[in-house]
Amino acid sequence: MASIQDISVSAVINLLSALFFLLAFAIVRLQPINDRVYFPKWYLKGIRASPRSSGAFGNKFVNLDFRTYIRFLNWMPAALKMPEQELIDHAGLDSAVYIRIYLLGLKIFVPITMLSFAVLVPVNWTAGETLEHIEDLTFSNIDRLSISNVPSGSQRFWAHVMMAYVFTFWTFYILYKEYKTISTMRLHFLASENRRPDQFTVLVKNVPPDPDESVDEHVEHFFRVNHPDHYLSHQVVYNANKLAELVEKKKSFRNWLTYYQTKYERNPVKKPKIKTGFWGLWGKSVDAIDYYMTEIEKLGKEEAEEREKVITDPKAIVPAAFVSFKSRWGAAVCSQTQQSRNSTNWLTEWAPEPRDVYWDNLSIPYIQLAVRRLLMAVALFFLTFFFMIPIGFVQAFASIDGIKKVLPFLKSLIEMDVVKSFVQGFLPGIVLKIFLILLPMILMTMSKIEGFTSLSSLDRRSASKYHLFVIVNVFFGSIITGAAFQQLQRFLDQSPTEIPKTIGVTLPMKATFFITFIMVDGWAGIAAEILRLVPLVMFHIKNTFLVKTEHDREQAMDPGSLNFSVSEPRLQLYFLLGLVYSVVTPILLPFIIVFFAFAFMVFRHQIINVYDQKYESGASFWPDVNRRILIGLGISQLLLIGLLSTKDTAKSTPLLIVLIVLTIWFHKLCKGRFESVFVKFPLEDAVVKDTVERTTEPNFNLKEYLRDAYLHPVLKMVEFEVPKEIDEENNPLVATKRTTQRSSKTVSNGTAEDGL
Amino acid sequence: MASIQDISVSAVINLLSALFFLLAFAIVRLQPINDRVYFPKWYLKGIRASPRSSGAFGNKFVNLDFRTYIRFLNWMPAALKMPEQELIDHAGLDSAVYIRIYLLGLKIFVPITMLSFAVLVPVNWTAGETLEHIEDLTFSNIDRLSISNVPSGSQRFWAHVMMAYVFTFWTFYILYKEYKTISTMRLHFLASENRRPDQFTVLVKNVPPDPDESVDEHVEHFFRVNHPDHYLSHQVVYNANKLAELVEKKKSFRNWLTYYQTKYERNPVKKPKIKTGFWGLWGKSVDAIDYYMTEIEKLGKEEAEEREKVITDPKAIVPAAFVSFKSRWGAAVCSQTQQSRNSTNWLTEWAPEPRDVYWDNLSIPYIQLAVRRLLMAVALFFLTFFFMIPIGFVQAFASIDGIKKVLPFLKSLIEMDVVKSFVQGFLPGIVLKIFLILLPMILMTMSKIEGFTSLSSLDRRSASKYHLFVIVNVFFGSIITGAAFQQLQRFLDQSPTEIPKTIGVTLPMKATFFITFIMVDGWAGIAAEILRLVPLVMFHIKNTFLVKTEHDREQAMDPGSLNFSVSEPRLQLYFLLGLVYSVVTPILLPFIIVFFAFAFMVFRHQIINVYDQKYESGASFWPDVNRRILIGLGISQLLLIGLLSTKDTAKSTPLLIVLIVLTIWFHKLCKGRFESVFVKFPLEDAVVKDTVERTTEPNFNLKEYLRDAYLHPVLKMVEFEVPKEIDEENNPLVATKRTTQRSSKTVSNGTAEDGL
Repeated sequence: MASIQDISVSAVINLLSALFFLLAFAIVRLQPINDRVYFPKWYLKGIRASPRSSGAFGNKFVNLDFRTYIRFLNWMPAALKMPEQELIDHAGLDSAVYIRIYLLGLKIFVPITMLSFAVLVPVNWTAGETLEHIEDLTFSNIDRLSISNVPSGSQRFWAHVMMAYVFTFWTFYILYKEYKTISTMRLHFLASENRRPDQFTVLVKNVPPDPDESVDEHVEHFFRVNHPDHYLSHQVVYNANKLAELVEKKKSFRNWLTYYQTKYERNPVKKPKIKTGFWGLWGKSVDAIDYYMTEIEKLGKEEAEEREKVITDPKAIVPAAFVSFKSRWGAAVCSQTQQSRNSTNWLTEWAPEPRDVYWDNLSIPYIQLAVRRLLMAVALFFLTFFFMIPIGFVQAFASIDGIKKVLPFLKSLIEMDVVKSFVQGFLPGIVLKIFLILLPMILMTMSKIEGFTSLSSLDRRSASKYHLFVIVNVFFGSIITGAAFQQLQRFLDQSPTEIPKTIGVTLPMKATFFITFIMVDGWAGIAAEILRLVPLVMFHIKNTFLVKTEHDREQAMDPGSLNFSVSEPRLQLYFLLGLVYSVVTPILLPFIIVFFAFAFMVFRHQIINVYDQKYESGASFWPDVNRRILIGLGISQLLLIGLLSTKDTAKSTPLLIVLIVLTIWFHKLCKGRFESVFVKFPLEDAVVKDTVERTTEPNFNLKEYLRDAYLHPVLKMVEFEVPKEIDEENNPLVATKRTTQRSSKTVSNGTAEDGL
Repeated sequence: MASIQDISVSAVINLLSALFFLLAFAIVRLQPINDRVYFPKWYLKGIRASPRSSGAFGNKFVNLDFRTYIRFLNWMPAALKMPEQELIDHAGLDSAVYIRIYLLGLKIFVPITMLSFAVLVPVNWTAGETLEHIEDLTFSNIDRLSISNVPSGSQRFWAHVMMAYVFTFWTFYILYKEYKTISTMRLHFLASENRRPDQFTVLVKNVPPDPDESVDEHVEHFFRVNHPDHYLSHQVVYNANKLAELVEKKKSFRNWLTYYQTKYERNPVKKPKIKTGFWGLWGKSVDAIDYYMTEIEKLGKEEAEEREKVITDPKAIVPAAFVSFKSRWGAAVCSQTQQSRNSTNWLTEWAPEPRDVYWDNLSIPYIQLAVRRLLMAVALFFLTFFFMIPIGFVQAFASIDGIKKVLPFLKSLIEMDVVKSFVQGFLPGIVLKIFLILLPMILMTMSKIEGFTSLSSLDRRSASKYHLFVIVNVFFGSIITGAAFQQLQRFLDQSPTEIPKTIGVTLPMKATFFITFIMVDGWAGIAAEILRLVPLVMFHIKNTFLVKTEHDREQAMDPGSLNFSVSEPRLQLYFLLGLVYSVVTPILLPFIIVFFAFAFMVFRHQIINVYDQKYESGASFWPDVNRRILIGLGISQLLLIGLLSTKDTAKSTPLLIVLIVLTIWFHKLCKGRFESVFVKFPLEDAVVKDTVERTTEPNFNLKEYLRDAYLHPVLKMVEFEVPKEIDEENNPLVATKRTTQRSSKTVSNGTAEDGL
């Protein structure tokens, strides 16, 4: 077991690295040359136009005003200054609600920590005589403050049970209040939004084949008959996946061309050559510029042919369509009702924003979807449960004993106190972290195979998978494998009442491990996030080789976005740890509070200055967040039952089972009370917006407005080479692939104007 | 263990009692005086008017034509003769689909039985050498045919695994086909129905309070705004529960009055007296006729006051309403969409038929509903799991050893072979049966507390509870307590992989118990059903004391109805037994087939001649039936895993886990594919019906037609004493309490005409 000393070493290391990241950030950020890396959001919004160096310093690349370096933490108050409503207008509701999760963590855990330190720490500390007698158990001094210090059968455990009740009800109270606030925010956001195509549009999938009619005609007839007073128009979906590939390839070739042209301009002596074979490693050596020019020309022709084919060939039309209605009421009705007697045909759902559509998945037949989901469920099971073995293996290796056994010549080194502390306190966390980096792409691919049709739902779905993975492998995996990896087989054969006991007993011993984990992953990791090392390097590479015009420079910026599918489940781990250890080892709680507070500031800063969201879902992820916190609460209660039942306090079990039943019930209550706000569009609100609009703009040509909104992005790019800036400004919702970010910018602007 | 001999004794007893019931039925049924007990359906339909004795026999009460007695089984072919479409027109879709469940049992189990006997019985039988060596295990000769006969580790178990696959896929195939057929039947039924008020009407619950408007105005304004083109009218709901009580009480007093008047007429010498105290047991003795006449008069006044109060007092209006629309499209849209931004207000659902409404539950607030459901879930848990103890106790007592121990003087009696067989084969089944009779009322009360608003949903909900109870207590309870009641505590501490093993091992030994259970509950029980002993006695009592006019006689008939909430879950037990034992002990299957075939005929006869359903839900219970059969299938697979893993064939476990995953997936597939047909009304169908009606009857006054359809039944009975026969005929949907059966009659007639 790690002692207070180990923890302190680890804390110092992590604080130092966090501090280093922050200092690096402070220095790098102030250099005008990096301005586009750290403030891309403002460039995208068109508010910042050039590096902010003014003439006084003369130098465009390095900031020489030393006074600015002194206040290296001044981004923090700046990040907190913007009021929430302005933040919503500036960055969208998704982002604003996302950082509220950190705030929610603070709201839940600050009072819990105070209460825990006021009640449980004294209770545990003063119960301590017994442990001093048991010398063979290597209890560290941290355990003095934890529940392990209380002797079996003690009446003091009633304090823990009581606190479990208090913490649970406090969590309920905060969660309920937050859910209510956020559903109000969402409704207000939707109500104050400008006109958008998705408000009038429904995505129709699984159009049944008709022998006499094309998909186009069939859709029109069906909706003219079944929504006679409300149907306006529709847009069939073309299968342009091949075309999109060609466009993508041409874009890449164009980048290479620019690269070699720049190279040639800088060094006109040597004509750049490349090899045409695999990865440019072998094959005939040819002139690079000529090669790419011919290739691009060839691709251009292919692309034109494919484009022609997609538009004219009826087989390129998939059995799905975007159907638009004359009013929001009509669209809301169509999206919420069943159209056909065969419930696998004519499936309607509220259309995602044009930029949120995931085009590849629009044409999957119903039965195939069912099969795909079955296969992915099985795959997820294996991924989740058999990924555990390598983690345990590497962690066992990364312990003092493991290293001694495998690398005996390191023995003298690792027995030095500092190194020992480092290995024990630092290494297991890093091992875990490396494993976690591999995963999100696999999970996202799995979600895509499952056939979801919008980026936002793909993100939510991947987050669910990742959450399962984090709970099983990071949380339970760390508890079980680290302490008792050899016992795994035996563990599987235990009775359902034994499992919580086994885990419960291990729980207090694992507190120090999780404290280091929080410091590595939570503190230093978040500080690294603000430095944006990868985008920084990438920007400078692109800037050097590809950027010729101001427009190219804008393209080179990579503002990134909140990666909901990864960051939210990771965040949930902190809720889980906090809830589990709130009763068991309260000393862990301050670390979690520091994480939430620090992450809140960092992400608020990033959202204001950096991230540019790919879509806006109106906080539709909140039901998931709420559910997962409740799952964490349930796990904490279950483990407490297990822990207490090994302490000769079986009498408390029924009391704690009541808590679990209440938690499940509270989940159902929240679901019934609030969830539909995040799924459906109430008719009441639709009518209000329709009425207002009809009064203010009675002659608006909706059909014209919606005409091309849901055309596949590559089909809109008739001339890729010359971006028609002006056109796009007039029609903010032409979301072509290259200009996704630009169009989102205009939408945000629209929202901002509306809110002001 | 019971041997073949025991089974034979039990079979003979049960066959004899079944035969006795059938003979009694044949004799009693042919007496003209009982005609109304055995053919009430035809009376209610108005096709039969008087006992069918014609002048030739002279006697109105006893059938003397002995030729009719000879063909005492001729009701069987008669029951099978009516074609299905005619049956639907005659008895409604609910009944017609209900008896298809028995047919489904035959479709599933006849091929399974044949295959089982062709493959598994020889495999088991020829594996038998081993058992003869083990003398201490009391294997009976039935076990020769079961899986117990195959020695551990034998390769023969692959036959069982293969058969488990075949049976599972066969069940999938039949279930899928049946689900499809029944959803088509439902859609066809709904499409061919006559105009009914519920097609145009939506039940709105949780109308929020408004300080400025009454509920009446608030509802009207809300729907005029949010469904401007479709809203037609609405009917507020009065809290007439107290009034209904008064009416009920008056009706009972009126019956007593008639009783004493008849008594006095028959014996004019003695004036009948009663005591006014508790239950007529003590108190002042008064003249009965005078007493009831004054009481009725008093109640009449009270009732008039209460009626006045309900209609005029705004506080008697509950926050719920029946809102009607101009078209079926409008109603379908409103019932499927969310109205308000607060998802606990303005909850809409498709209105039940007027006669299906459960009026008492219309005004429960949302949060209260959530609390009620929580409490009922907890109550159900305790009821289900702690009811087990008395069953086990009584069953342990009702075994040979139990009786010997408690009543030692019976020792010599019960050691006689016949008595021993009787005790072993018969008694445990009866004990179980008695316990089961107590339950349905409790479960129905629990469902009512949960706040469902229609009789059909109450029935479905009670059936779910009862199904849980049957699985836990009858199925698992019989397996565990009978064999190892003392092991219960130990059992709870076993690992999740151990539990299926323990049950799996006991399974083959319990086959004989379940065979006797099938004979007692299935064979003799069904034969008793057709005799209708209780209604027979009740009818004659009423006929003697209460009937004065032909109308009174009609009132005295109790046609009964299919009690879905009890009979469906019981039926599911047979599916469960069949699926579980199909691989383990195939000898049980023929008993199940006999049950399904016999029950099919009996219930078809009852549906044609006797039962009169209280409501028509259009087979909306089918998703439950399908789900429960799949639950049975899953249990059978789980227990097979347990059984085989004790037989040294752990290699087969992954193969069987695949089956369980497939079963869950198939359930999801069915749900996605078909369930919405049973829950929602597709707009396509609504439009078709609307269009047809608009063309054929362009001037129909819908508002007038719907005016009183959803008024509380007691409020419609302005003058209870004089039933206005003619009025009711003109307005078939005035479903007053007394005339529920009559109005259903007219509806059925309507359907019949429509179908012809």
